[in-house]
Amino acid sequence: MNILIAPDSFKESLDAIDVCNAIKEGFSQVYPNAEYHLLPLADGGEGTSSVLSYVLDGDWQQIKVHDPLMRPVTAKYFLTHDGLAIIEVAEACGLHLLAPTERNPLITSTYGVGEMIADAISKGASQMLIGLGGSATNDAGAGMLQALGVKISDANGNLLSAGGASLIDTHSIDASPLKDLLSTVKITVACDVTSPLCGPTGASHVFGPQKGASSDDLLTLDTALAHFAAVTGSATVSATGTHNINANCDNVEGAGAAGGLGFALMAFCQAELKSGFDTIAEVVQLEQHLASADLVITGEGKLDAQTAMGKVASGVALRAKSISPSLPVIAICGSVDRDTDTHNHFNNLPFDVVLPSIQKLDKLENVLEGAYPNVAQTAYQLAASLKLGQHLNR
Amino acid sequence: MNILIAPDSFKESLDAIDVCNAIKEGFSQVYPNAEYHLLPLADGGEGTSSVLSYVLDGDWQQIKVHDPLMRPVTAKYFLTHDGLAIIEVAEACGLHLLAPTERNPLITSTYGVGEMIADAISKGASQMLIGLGGSATNDAGAGMLQALGVKISDANGNLLSAGGASLIDTHSIDASPLKDLLSTVKITVACDVTSPLCGPTGASHVFGPQKGASSDDLLTLDTALAHFAAVTGSATVSATGTHNINANCDNVEGAGAAGGLGFALMAFCQAELKSGFDTIAEVVQLEQHLASADLVITGEGKLDAQTAMGKVASGVALRAKSISPSLPVIAICGSVDRDTDTHNHFNNLPFDVVLPSIQKLDKLENVLEGAYPNVAQTAYQLAASLKLGQHLNR
Repeated sequence: MNILIAPDSFKESLDAIDVCNAIKEGFSQVYPNAEYHLLPLADGGEGTSSVLSYVLDGDWQQIKVHDPLMRPVTAKYFLTHDGLAIIEVAEACGLHLLAPTERNPLITSTYGVGEMIADAISKGASQMLIGLGGSATNDAGAGMLQALGVKISDANGNLLSAGGASLIDTHSIDASPLKDLLSTVKITVACDVTSPLCGPTGASHVFGPQKGASSDDLLTLDTALAHFAAVTGSATVSATGTHNINANCDNVEGAGAAGGLGFALMAFCQAELKSGFDTIAEVVQLEQHLASADLVITGEGKLDAQTAMGKVASGVALRAKSISPSLPVIAICGSVDRDTDTHNHFNNLPFDVVLPSIQKLDKLENVLEGAYPNVAQTAYQLAASLKLGQHLNR
Repeated sequence: MNILIAPDSFKESLDAIDVCNAIKEGFSQVYPNAEYHLLPLADGGEGTSSVLSYVLDGDWQQIKVHDPLMRPVTAKYFLTHDGLAIIEVAEACGLHLLAPTERNPLITSTYGVGEMIADAISKGASQMLIGLGGSATNDAGAGMLQALGVKISDANGNLLSAGGASLIDTHSIDASPLKDLLSTVKITVACDVTSPLCGPTGASHVFGPQKGASSDDLLTLDTALAHFAAVTGSATVSATGTHNINANCDNVEGAGAAGGLGFALMAFCQAELKSGFDTIAEVVQLEQHLASADLVITGEGKLDAQTAMGKVASGVALRAKSISPSLPVIAICGSVDRDTDTHNHFNNLPFDVVLPSIQKLDKLENVLEGAYPNVAQTAYQLAASLKLGQHLNR
């Protein structure tokens, strides 16, 4: 029996590789001779590069870049032997790099992200997968562009200082250096944010507050970003180049991701924005793995029956069923949150079986700490049930 | 497929019949055409008569008796059409009948228990099953004997007053009325207490404190009960009778149950003490039900892997396996408490599968209140797993 174990991480308790190991540990007590394929997954957010580093051949790259306040910080990314760079922008411009009092999206910059991209290109990357979660910035990706050599100037020809607020002074953009730099690289952005760049559902208004923006700051930033987008249309590129500026993407879904970094990547770097899970599924060749499986076990820290919140678990199930409706998919979760007012929600998720792994009421910290043995235990009981079923009369 | 659903109640949340219904509700979503046999069980404690009333044909009897402080109280017991009376002594002498400030085992009496027994005999009971849990008394069953007509007198020939303390004055016991009264009735006592009547592990010292006895009271009661037991040897019975006094049972395990009521039932009423679960298993013909089942589902509110605390669930499993080692037994529990420091306890219980039904961390009251849908949900997922197994390649 060919068993594919393809879970998400359990937030705050187990990374996806631990979840794989726990499920295998329990299941293999009952089915010691099955073939187990461990395929840890992620949704494009935190942990994406570490998960992919487990599946793909390559090396971690560790470099000095600038943090959101332009201080030195060490960032790492994963570069496969095939030339795919897997970059999480939070390594360079993440909110976790700032003390709460330092949060200020008027001045924070994505400069370090540009440095990571440039480093990867210098090391031969021909493809890039960029995860946008967790940024402390709201600069429409201007910092990243500056690190890649783009010159953003005010009416007096002076280069703009770092941060979203100064973008209001944008007068001209010389993007010429991108032509050579990006000519051989294809960038895919893992992004599940649907915000446009500006407006009430845009980067500043939706994500600004959690990055430290006051309500006045939100207006300042929204106006500055709109101005920057408007000037983008007249950005100059190298006279002889084929590199195009895609200036009208400010209303595209995802332009507002990571404080507008999504916009800059689309407008200046011809990046393609794709759902995080879809991107990762493609990179790890999920469909091929599913096609050769007899049984699929996925998992998610918390599964919500109404919203199918678990993007990874549902994504695995939907893909499996599209390959073969009879391919069994089981979800082992930390906890399962259903509507308690109805008894009829037995089967409203795309799984054949859904099992929570919580064993008893306890303090949250104990439950999180005990996740590994609980998942292993649940996998064991699941395997025992399947085995029993194999011997029941049909 | 013949499915036997034979669970205990889930303490504080679901009675055993509810547990049966919830399991059937979930399971039958997957296996609508299976045959379901619902056999709610108990361990001889609270709920025993209500569980047995579900399985056996008969009627509830409701009568006025005396409570532990000799006040009127309504008590009920179940009388089957075959003449089996199922009596829980707590109906007449239970701790729940007293306010905390009223608890006083020096004076509380089992008189009402005797009235229930007499009533059942008058209505034709030929067999009695008496459950001993939850008493407020420590009178060695003297009150019960008095209600059955036994005369317990002091040295001056005066009848003793109610309660354990006055037993120190016991001088003579005339048990003559028992001869005719008990000649046609066989009494079985469901009892898992192993205490003897007296001494450090006896009724007074072990159970006295929870009934309101001070440390001085414990000595008073222990001495009084020992004296009563000593005088029992010289109790008189009807000159022409065959009714025997079994005076030397004060050291038998269970003599100390229900404040010594176990002693009086054995010594004066020739009652047989048996494990609560064994007694109930016999009454409901558990073994016959198991013999015709293809699959057994039991359950328990809280299962403890180390102590196999769940007497009913383990009892069902052990009996099932003794009938046929290949008869599958599954336990659906409220929660499962394992040692968290080991990953190796996958299979240290006598079940093929053990599933907790708790779905997520929540307040205890919410978990208790949500037990029914959680159990139904767990039964559904179990059934879905078995069904999947039936279609997996062997």
